[in-house]
Amino acid sequence: MHADRLIRKKRDGQLLDRAEIFEFVEHYTRGDIPDYQTSALLMAVFFRGLNARETADLTEAMMRSGQVIDLSDFPQPKVDKHSTGGVGDKTSLVIAPVAAAGGLLVPMISGRGLGHTGGTLDKLEAIPGFRTRLTLAEFRQALRRTGAALIGQTEQLAPAERKLYALRDVTATVESIPLISASIMSKKLAEGIDALVLDVKTGSGAFMKTPESARELATRMVEIGTACGKRVEALITGMSQPLGSAVGNTLEVIESIETLKGRGPQDLLDVSRELTARMFVLGGLDASLDAARTRFDQILSSGAALQKFAEIIEFQGGDPRVLEDYSRLPSAGHEESVVAWQEGYVAALEAEALGRASMRLGAGRERMDSVIDRAVGLVFEKKVGDAVNTGDRICTIYANERSFLPEVREAIRSATRIGADPVKPSALVLGHVP
Amino acid sequence: MHADRLIRKKRDGQLLDRAEIFEFVEHYTRGDIPDYQTSALLMAVFFRGLNARETADLTEAMMRSGQVIDLSDFPQPKVDKHSTGGVGDKTSLVIAPVAAAGGLLVPMISGRGLGHTGGTLDKLEAIPGFRTRLTLAEFRQALRRTGAALIGQTEQLAPAERKLYALRDVTATVESIPLISASIMSKKLAEGIDALVLDVKTGSGAFMKTPESARELATRMVEIGTACGKRVEALITGMSQPLGSAVGNTLEVIESIETLKGRGPQDLLDVSRELTARMFVLGGLDASLDAARTRFDQILSSGAALQKFAEIIEFQGGDPRVLEDYSRLPSAGHEESVVAWQEGYVAALEAEALGRASMRLGAGRERMDSVIDRAVGLVFEKKVGDAVNTGDRICTIYANERSFLPEVREAIRSATRIGADPVKPSALVLGHVP
Repeated sequence: MHADRLIRKKRDGQLLDRAEIFEFVEHYTRGDIPDYQTSALLMAVFFRGLNARETADLTEAMMRSGQVIDLSDFPQPKVDKHSTGGVGDKTSLVIAPVAAAGGLLVPMISGRGLGHTGGTLDKLEAIPGFRTRLTLAEFRQALRRTGAALIGQTEQLAPAERKLYALRDVTATVESIPLISASIMSKKLAEGIDALVLDVKTGSGAFMKTPESARELATRMVEIGTACGKRVEALITGMSQPLGSAVGNTLEVIESIETLKGRGPQDLLDVSRELTARMFVLGGLDASLDAARTRFDQILSSGAALQKFAEIIEFQGGDPRVLEDYSRLPSAGHEESVVAWQEGYVAALEAEALGRASMRLGAGRERMDSVIDRAVGLVFEKKVGDAVNTGDRICTIYANERSFLPEVREAIRSATRIGADPVKPSALVLGHVP
Repeated sequence: MHADRLIRKKRDGQLLDRAEIFEFVEHYTRGDIPDYQTSALLMAVFFRGLNARETADLTEAMMRSGQVIDLSDFPQPKVDKHSTGGVGDKTSLVIAPVAAAGGLLVPMISGRGLGHTGGTLDKLEAIPGFRTRLTLAEFRQALRRTGAALIGQTEQLAPAERKLYALRDVTATVESIPLISASIMSKKLAEGIDALVLDVKTGSGAFMKTPESARELATRMVEIGTACGKRVEALITGMSQPLGSAVGNTLEVIESIETLKGRGPQDLLDVSRELTARMFVLGGLDASLDAARTRFDQILSSGAALQKFAEIIEFQGGDPRVLEDYSRLPSAGHEESVVAWQEGYVAALEAEALGRASMRLGAGRERMDSVIDRAVGLVFEKKVGDAVNTGDRICTIYANERSFLPEVREAIRSATRIGADPVKPSALVLGHVP
């Protein structure tokens, strides 16, 4: 295939046809088309875009570059949730147990954190023994036993997506809505699901900084899923301040367990309920969102979700005793408080800056190959809208490396704004597609 | 250096500073920055452009990636001519001898043909024995002896340009005016010249299809040269029909010799005279263009230019007897005529299509590694504006491979338009910069 013609075509604003896209993905995955031609094509796509049909074709081509899991032998509706990522976003740890306890099959393939955002796999691995690298056979077995499995992308699934993502990462071609959509959806569609609920986050702590770009991404992903015959809905949710109180792997696991015990922070509970309710409706378990929300609350209050999480942890090799004994989780050597320097109302907790502060402590990755510290992070006692008196604790820093503390303390202070006037926190669910 | 930041910066429309551009060129030439990052940057430049300062910096960085020839020990003004290329464009073979005979030093580093356009080196190599690959020492010796040398780019000159051009060629990033300008000028400025006359061609047979894009390219190149302290002028000349009568290497050598003997076609003579006259003025030999044009005509009619071409050929290892005996040049096995199919006036001879027809015969390269046949090509007896009767010969095809003939004949017919009304051929010199 003449890759230069394909590059030229896209560069000049023409549409690539389905056969060209499939041929390109196939040859690139095989190594017949070099990285230097592919990166030029990716940059042309960055500027020219891909239309809905091209994006769906690219998604399908990447999905079919590897194995597509067939779960048709399972009786339950197969429904997953995917978040575009944020700071303190631990909803997967709440949603997977509730959804499975409610009767769905949840084949959840997740990612790791990068930069200021966290990743589900990193959080789960804070639980001693928890294995996120299962073979596909083990993955099916886990689904059979517990109804939910939370694992990392395997070599067999969408290899073209992995190869393309690695190239985009070093060629400044990540920030393209059609490429992001195709990348996410190719992995999700390879899971063998019937339906998918997307949590597209927007705000300083999210990848999509504006509600408009978040809506565009959500629309694109819903279009792709629909074109591939799946039921897909997206919520657009706020990520201007961290979700919940905890940022950092162990701290977020504890907060998730607390939520499953009915003691979680309201914002985390609300977003988890909205997302799970849509999963129940798309899966056909409930006819209305209200009924589905009630189902969510009942599962939580009955203890069934906590029990389900214990099963999931146990089946994936983890120690379920952590649910009742947090001292079995990694803990940090130092704690330090950041307190209010004036009286007033918390007006902002800049999510991206706080995510970066947490990363600086070691909770997140600066680069894909960074080693992380699962014990460290931040816990907030105040959120946007809360009244504070001078000296009130806003945040506790959990650190292992004391030398990072001055810098992190300063970063948290800069990311926190206290105003004299009362502040109404912005809505958590900003919209939905369709 | 973080190449991904540089890509992102240009992608987002920001300016790259001089240090960044120099560092990038240095690291890329050394192989520290991979092709896949460079091609993404080139595509970002394709879309975002480079301003005059960035383009001058890139030119200088590429020039300084290798040796810059120092000709300061030569007493003559050092002046070269460069054409952006066309069909039947053999002016270098006329201009170099005239300019050297007139008192200029002409250190001419030329290229090979690609696609529908021809290249000076390919034409010269039709002369038995002519060597276009000289060492820099031999190049200086040739200049010392004859005042002119016509050679190919050496390994030592602007290696960054060679490496970048090869990458652009396979990543659809050739057609960028700042990149073209920087590429041409970096090679020319490495020649050690004082002044340069550019022949920027426009029309179907040229790289720049419109006069506007040709003027933009000319302006960019003049700006770069001026920024580097050189005297540079550009003519914008027409390339909608082939220049002169001959297309194909040997055939063009013969036409050039005929021109040096005072028997060449008017259009070739006119363009050669205008370009050479500007070289004389920029070199300080003449105070006015009119005086310089007279000098051109006198050198030609005195036989001094033909004598100079004999010296150049001889010093570069070629057989100067070809000047009087064309049978010493390669010749084709078959000749075939294309005749007028109706009475009227020649309204068009589409240069690009005719260049491709000649390439199909073997005179040009489809790819950089194609092998060419120096004997074959086309000779036109009629040009745009000429009256024709049915059956008049318009063109003679010189071929070695008969099987190409039907296709080539058909291509020539399609590229030729005969109309009922008289046609005035468009002006040859369309403008100049500054």
